Amino acid sequence: MMINLFWLGIVGAAIALVFAYIQSRRVLKYSEGSERMAEIAADIRTGAKAYMKRQYTSVVKFFAVVFVILCLLAFIPPLFGADSGLVNRFAPFAFITGGFFTGLSGYIGMKVATNANARTANAASESLNKGLRVSFSSGTVMGFVVVGFGLLDITAWLLVLRFFFNAEALEIGQAMVKFGLGVASMAMFARVGGGIFTKAADVGADLVGKVEVGIPEDDPRNPAVIADNVGDNVGDVAGMGADLYEAYAHAIIATFALGVGIYSWGGMLLPILISVAGIIASLIGTFFVRTKEQADQKSLLRSLHMGTFLAAGIAAVSALPLTFLVARISEGEFGEMMQSNAWGIFGAIIIGIISGLLIGYFTEYYTSDTNKPTRELAASSETGTATVMIGGISLGMKATVGPVLTVAAAALISFFISGGHASLEMMDSAFQAGLYGIGIASVGLVATLGINLATDAFGPVADNAGGIAEMAKLPEEVRQRTDALDSLGNTTAATGKGFSIGATGFSALALLVSYVTLAEESLGSNLNLTVTNPPVLIGLFIGVVTAFFFAALTISAVHKAAQSVVIEVRRQFKEIVGLMEGTAKADYASCVDICTKSALRKMVAPSLLAFLVPIGTGIFLDAEGVVGMLAGIVVAGFALAVFMMTSGGAWDNAKKYIEAGNHGGKGSEQHKAAVIGDTVGDPFKDTAGPSFNILITLSSAVSLVFVGVTTAFSFL
Amino acid sequence: MMINLFWLGIVGAAIALVFAYIQSRRVLKYSEGSERMAEIAADIRTGAKAYMKRQYTSVVKFFAVVFVILCLLAFIPPLFGADSGLVNRFAPFAFITGGFFTGLSGYIGMKVATNANARTANAASESLNKGLRVSFSSGTVMGFVVVGFGLLDITAWLLVLRFFFNAEALEIGQAMVKFGLGVASMAMFARVGGGIFTKAADVGADLVGKVEVGIPEDDPRNPAVIADNVGDNVGDVAGMGADLYEAYAHAIIATFALGVGIYSWGGMLLPILISVAGIIASLIGTFFVRTKEQADQKSLLRSLHMGTFLAAGIAAVSALPLTFLVARISEGEFGEMMQSNAWGIFGAIIIGIISGLLIGYFTEYYTSDTNKPTRELAASSETGTATVMIGGISLGMKATVGPVLTVAAAALISFFISGGHASLEMMDSAFQAGLYGIGIASVGLVATLGINLATDAFGPVADNAGGIAEMAKLPEEVRQRTDALDSLGNTTAATGKGFSIGATGFSALALLVSYVTLAEESLGSNLNLTVTNPPVLIGLFIGVVTAFFFAALTISAVHKAAQSVVIEVRRQFKEIVGLMEGTAKADYASCVDICTKSALRKMVAPSLLAFLVPIGTGIFLDAEGVVGMLAGIVVAGFALAVFMMTSGGAWDNAKKYIEAGNHGGKGSEQHKAAVIGDTVGDPFKDTAGPSFNILITLSSAVSLVFVGVTTAFSFL
Repeated sequence: MMINLFWLGIVGAAIALVFAYIQSRRVLKYSEGSERMAEIAADIRTGAKAYMKRQYTSVVKFFAVVFVILCLLAFIPPLFGADSGLVNRFAPFAFITGGFFTGLSGYIGMKVATNANARTANAASESLNKGLRVSFSSGTVMGFVVVGFGLLDITAWLLVLRFFFNAEALEIGQAMVKFGLGVASMAMFARVGGGIFTKAADVGADLVGKVEVGIPEDDPRNPAVIADNVGDNVGDVAGMGADLYEAYAHAIIATFALGVGIYSWGGMLLPILISVAGIIASLIGTFFVRTKEQADQKSLLRSLHMGTFLAAGIAAVSALPLTFLVARISEGEFGEMMQSNAWGIFGAIIIGIISGLLIGYFTEYYTSDTNKPTRELAASSETGTATVMIGGISLGMKATVGPVLTVAAAALISFFISGGHASLEMMDSAFQAGLYGIGIASVGLVATLGINLATDAFGPVADNAGGIAEMAKLPEEVRQRTDALDSLGNTTAATGKGFSIGATGFSALALLVSYVTLAEESLGSNLNLTVTNPPVLIGLFIGVVTAFFFAALTISAVHKAAQSVVIEVRRQFKEIVGLMEGTAKADYASCVDICTKSALRKMVAPSLLAFLVPIGTGIFLDAEGVVGMLAGIVVAGFALAVFMMTSGGAWDNAKKYIEAGNHGGKGSEQHKAAVIGDTVGDPFKDTAGPSFNILITLSSAVSLVFVGVTTAFSFL
Repeated sequence: MMINLFWLGIVGAAIALVFAYIQSRRVLKYSEGSERMAEIAADIRTGAKAYMKRQYTSVVKFFAVVFVILCLLAFIPPLFGADSGLVNRFAPFAFITGGFFTGLSGYIGMKVATNANARTANAASESLNKGLRVSFSSGTVMGFVVVGFGLLDITAWLLVLRFFFNAEALEIGQAMVKFGLGVASMAMFARVGGGIFTKAADVGADLVGKVEVGIPEDDPRNPAVIADNVGDNVGDVAGMGADLYEAYAHAIIATFALGVGIYSWGGMLLPILISVAGIIASLIGTFFVRTKEQADQKSLLRSLHMGTFLAAGIAAVSALPLTFLVARISEGEFGEMMQSNAWGIFGAIIIGIISGLLIGYFTEYYTSDTNKPTRELAASSETGTATVMIGGISLGMKATVGPVLTVAAAALISFFISGGHASLEMMDSAFQAGLYGIGIASVGLVATLGINLATDAFGPVADNAGGIAEMAKLPEEVRQRTDALDSLGNTTAATGKGFSIGATGFSALALLVSYVTLAEESLGSNLNLTVTNPPVLIGLFIGVVTAFFFAALTISAVHKAAQSVVIEVRRQFKEIVGLMEGTAKADYASCVDICTKSALRKMVAPSLLAFLVPIGTGIFLDAEGVVGMLAGIVVAGFALAVFMMTSGGAWDNAKKYIEAGNHGGKGSEQHKAAVIGDTVGDPFKDTAGPSFNILITLSSAVSLVFVGVTTAFSFL
């Protein structure tokens, strides 16, 4: 009987997808405005589509190779680890579906966003509130597509394995973790590729346009302006969609894998039901994102908060009956655990939800220009560029404390209130119950991702709308309105990224534990995972430098690509007669082309790192080294992610704060210093920073899938 | 009989100190040049002495408080952990001597340096080679004072405990680790306080002088110029001396503590003998640092390399008979291990020496302007300040890979060739032998610190000499010569810092293992140090954010202090009539005063962090959390240290490369961008970066000393 309740997951997914469809129809009903606006929007759309097509073509090749490898591994069972062969044989196919849905979520989000940008600009010429409505609707599509497909993919596989192949709960739980490989691979390419594209274009456009030539942002005379707007869509929209799909799916998958020692169907049912409740709660929440016709920016933020808090509240309240329901109908050890401690498990879910809000609070505190840190950063422009740089870096490093300790404390508390005890054996049932608590907390955190992502994904649409307003020479007030939306989006974007890295912090632990379990099965002996054991400690070092090296690769990719854009833009300004005067048209396509080529070429190295390091470590240091390495990537990656995203966000908003007329305002020396800060922050916050969570899960997924191979061929 | 061989340690220390004394007499024989030069030197000397006096006054108060606490703990044995009460009662006194010698080393180095600067300038007016000779002699004093006092302090305590209190080898080994608290505390204050002073003055002077007003570096019209030169002495000389004293002492102490399970006197004798051999080898090496009268910069670097390589070679060769000697005369388990595997232990020493050279190579590769990375960084100035920033940050992050993996691999290989096996119990004798191998490798690394520090400490002297040459308006060629020396010093300084963080990487493992041993004794049960155990993993997170937070605190201290200096310098340029024209004198003292006050106030928070985090973690997460936390600080601190030191060094040299006439040369837009890079790099490479190794050892030392207290009062 219980197994039938899993169909609710399909129902929940369907609700999300239908809602997303309705919202996308709603967006399309609006007008794109003047012919010029429609034309610009079409240019952006074409560029984005062309990039996505080329990106997916590259990715398909990669997927084909890995698919073949996975098939080989599936038929040489010892190479694949010691667990069930049946489920493993589905891993190659799950790899494909995971990659497919991840890519599809990003693609749909991009499609809607590129259709919503001109419409938002046009709506904003009526009122700020209307602009918000269009862009937020477009964001909603992205949010619900991600949770819908995420839940669909997981539940469908679960049902297929159960009904067609009669798999057991334990088998599915262990296998699902491996399914994450496709999701994480796709997310990596989308995030890193898109991130390089968008920031190369943005940095290149700003450096020459704003700093050297002195024309405003999004000025149509800037040859990189279309590339910049395309970048928003392929990076901040499609890349982010793929990224958050990954975070969402992994939170659920990880819970499947945690507590595997005490497993029964109930252990998998609870995260599915919480996710469904979260979808409905998010859906209700979206209806409360509205304001009076003449709203200011503050009331807009309040209305966004209203929607997300309400959704979180509904999700929290509905978790209570769901937890007790699952407790009542569960059997075996898991059932006993739930029956004796349903309140504890419920508490863990609440802790997850609260820690999501807390992370959001911390990010907002450090990046919003209404607070002291960003204000002080803006003030440091008074003493020049160098102090802006130093100030931003130290701000971001300070900001790591809150989110990291929140996740750490939340994980610890979830562990204990779910019945875990320290100093116990790994497979002890109390320890397993504690781990399950950590997993379910992460499901609580991402449950309302639907609305959170919506409040996040509308930002780039507003940003694009501003660009179109500028290029189509709409009245100044339209640009002011889209700027207000954009700035709002900046804050919510930081929150969204905090969400995904926070969720990853939880699920990373789950993946680590799964890896240990599989490796011990595969080796037939216990691992010595004491931190003072040299292979573990050295693994930690390897993991930490991997995170730093990954950051270096992604930032320097932007750096190099941006330099090519700078050179191209300078060339056009020099060679195209009448460009500066507005009598000749810039060659937009060449900048788009440079960004596309750079992004596709430079996304390879960072992505491969997540494959080569785990396999290399496994071969040289065996499973113990791999565990250390994964732990190192998690802790360093988490801290670096928060550091880079917060520094970047704060620099961006400090610049906006100055542009609003403080510390000399636009055009002053202080403003120039702040623009440089913002430029440095761009690859921090939109390329490297948000890629760390994927690095974490992808390297875990690679380790899991290749555990058999590495333990078989290890030197140690 | 064997115990008498320890007197050789006293002899070695005496040789080092006598040599240092002779060198300092030699420096003083040179003339300070013109009256004006002597006057400037006196100004600098007075400022430096005044700062040091105030710094030590603050530190004495701190030491008094901790001394009282340690005395209390010593008389309430259960709070102090379960090990021998006898030795613990000496911990408060060893705390004082450690702090005293650390501070004294820095002070003597500063004293000689402030006496050598004008003399170097004067000698450089004759020839480059003469300038090198004076500044290098002054550096030699610092180098040999550090190793002399370091070896003296350790050996003397060992002999006192043995002969007056009849302590056993095991007892001494365990107690010595706690003695590191005084050394690390003093080093922390000296490094952080001095680091804030020097960079606040430097950044402040450059921002207004070079960037805004457009006067050359060290121009006497700049009100912060004396503060800048004082800073070189209290930060780059005294701070570095204290820092390297700490790294040196900890390498030896850590080896005392490692392999404690198989202990005998032989285990302690070997590191002492290797250190003595290293002192003699360094002494010989110094005689080979000389060139022909008309030397160019390249041949100077070659002659420095000649000295250090020769010293390393002599130390390596002499390690062979010493190892076999100790093997022959050692008894018990340690004797058996040595006799069956003397070659392995010898190999570990060689690995230590080689890894020191390798770390030096990597740092040089990334920071020297003769190589691709720094050249590319200089080239990125063509596209503006932002690309210089992004380029420098990614360069530093990339550079973490080499040194960190070198230490990791060296530790792993040392562990295995010394007879260690993975997956064994901690107290197993093979595991202990492996750990001993890691310890002895770190002793090999620091053995020739005498000459390495000498090649490092001459840099700031040359820097000061350049300042004096500029202020005393000596001919242009003098300044060119001191600049050549300064630039040479930049490269060797990066190497020196790499040395100290590398040595710390090794000894951190030793401290970790000591902590585990003590905590298990204190708790009477085994710890579950599996990385997947939530308290351990959460401890890891805490450690990582501690490292980031520490970086933020030190950088932002410089940031704020520099802003005050900027404001003061701007004020003077505005208010003092005739300052710019050279008719009125700047008020140097006020800038010195601002830097002093800022440094003393701002050094408190980062230093306290190393006390509060270990104690707090112990109380909240017990010993398991502390182990995770320490591991987290080690891995993140190591990577951050290399990142920040390399970025800073590369920015500095990229600027110098441009100043040498490339990419537009001095005064161009490219140069301005590079100057900003250099300014941002200043607190990276001279404040935060080189402080991490102290953070690592200090937090370990605090954990060790307070293990009894935290386990007694822990919540878990």
